[in-house]
Amino acid sequence: MKRYLITFSYDGTHFAGFQSQPELRTVQQEIEDALCFINQKKKTPLVASGRTDAKVHALRQKAHFDLNVEITLNKLKRALNSNLSEDIHVIKVEEVESNFHARYYVKRKKYLYKMNLGEYNPLERDYVYQYNHTLNVGAMKKAIKHFKGTHDFRAFVSENSMKEECTRTIYKVSIKRNKLNRDLLEFYFEGTGFMKYQIRNMVGYLIKVGENKVKPDSVVKVIESKNRMKAGKTAPAEGLYLMDVIY
Amino acid sequence: MKRYLITFSYDGTHFAGFQSQPELRTVQQEIEDALCFINQKKKTPLVASGRTDAKVHALRQKAHFDLNVEITLNKLKRALNSNLSEDIHVIKVEEVESNFHARYYVKRKKYLYKMNLGEYNPLERDYVYQYNHTLNVGAMKKAIKHFKGTHDFRAFVSENSMKEECTRTIYKVSIKRNKLNRDLLEFYFEGTGFMKYQIRNMVGYLIKVGENKVKPDSVVKVIESKNRMKAGKTAPAEGLYLMDVIY
Repeated sequence: MKRYLITFSYDGTHFAGFQSQPELRTVQQEIEDALCFINQKKKTPLVASGRTDAKVHALRQKAHFDLNVEITLNKLKRALNSNLSEDIHVIKVEEVESNFHARYYVKRKKYLYKMNLGEYNPLERDYVYQYNHTLNVGAMKKAIKHFKGTHDFRAFVSENSMKEECTRTIYKVSIKRNKLNRDLLEFYFEGTGFMKYQIRNMVGYLIKVGENKVKPDSVVKVIESKNRMKAGKTAPAEGLYLMDVIY
Repeated sequence: MKRYLITFSYDGTHFAGFQSQPELRTVQQEIEDALCFINQKKKTPLVASGRTDAKVHALRQKAHFDLNVEITLNKLKRALNSNLSEDIHVIKVEEVESNFHARYYVKRKKYLYKMNLGEYNPLERDYVYQYNHTLNVGAMKKAIKHFKGTHDFRAFVSENSMKEECTRTIYKVSIKRNKLNRDLLEFYFEGTGFMKYQIRNMVGYLIKVGENKVKPDSVVKVIESKNRMKAGKTAPAEGLYLMDVIY
């Protein structure tokens, strides 16, 4: 028995999220079906670094599984890709220690959120959040800095996650205009981990700041309130990308 | 009666091309249906700068039509967009002279062809041609220059177009690596007009050059041959973008 770590990308548009659910098309189920085929029809569980929601994309998601089949890393990569739909792609296969765990061993995760402030582009309709009003981007840049550090992010998580421990550390944040398309705003977050809806809720609050409805410094108070009602709307899923997972 | 010129973008993925065809979803039909609705249920023909094939994208396609309805340009733009699917978008509506013609008045057309030489990216599967071998890009850059100028492009057009006059002028050509993704090769063509499959056939021949199967200078001989059999494969549609139309 060997443990493998895979790095893979997917277009979240036509998935009901990462995690297997009966009757729904999910990333986990697609990959487990491919693994089952490769692993002599044996059920082969996939353990990912974490879930992503419906319509959320991943450029470098990571997951582990165990196989008892003689196969080289290159052949395993090819066998997986030839059994996966065209909206999932395995980039890399590595062998790891038998105690490696794709979720527990995560040190950092990197996310990007893309938002278009310019003319609607039909080619990007599933890949950016289209926002048709003007925003005070300067205020948003001030506000996003307040998310840095170690905080109890209870005010920014989905109701389901509130019973869990909500303290996380965010190491890096930024808002930048894309170099080739100045109308495209890119929000970057790097931290120990993010809870369900956390990034989309943080972006939702930053939009409120950009609309001049609240001040940049108010982020501090909302974090301290630990009250979901203070934060506001959840930004749409299609703008969110899991960019990388660091072990 | 007023004549309008519209500038619009579309994602070609789910269209059977631009031109109306019975039983098939086409860009022309979608826009004519929207115009019919706006024009008090009257059939309203749309005349575009030219056709695009199935799966080919457009960032700034242009077309004209006539309307006998009192409506401002802004309202007409909104009325069109609210009656169009999310994979077509009208960027601009202008009023033009009653003798303006969206096809006959074309001075230049600009096309881009995108080809990915790096790892397959599922998010771009409908938007770039995925090429999984190495290419001699230097040789391709030499070869593409031979397409510049006024030539009879008979060797590079679809069989259906061969009966027509095939002389066209190409003003600008280039092959560049995308600034944010060096694995993404972008072929640019600007000229008086391009016939069916012409750009995809020119790109197909450039790939043959990049594979070192033919020399860069051989482009000259193939053009002179006026023989479709000499040119080679047609590059796939999903990499092709109509970038702009100049009047």
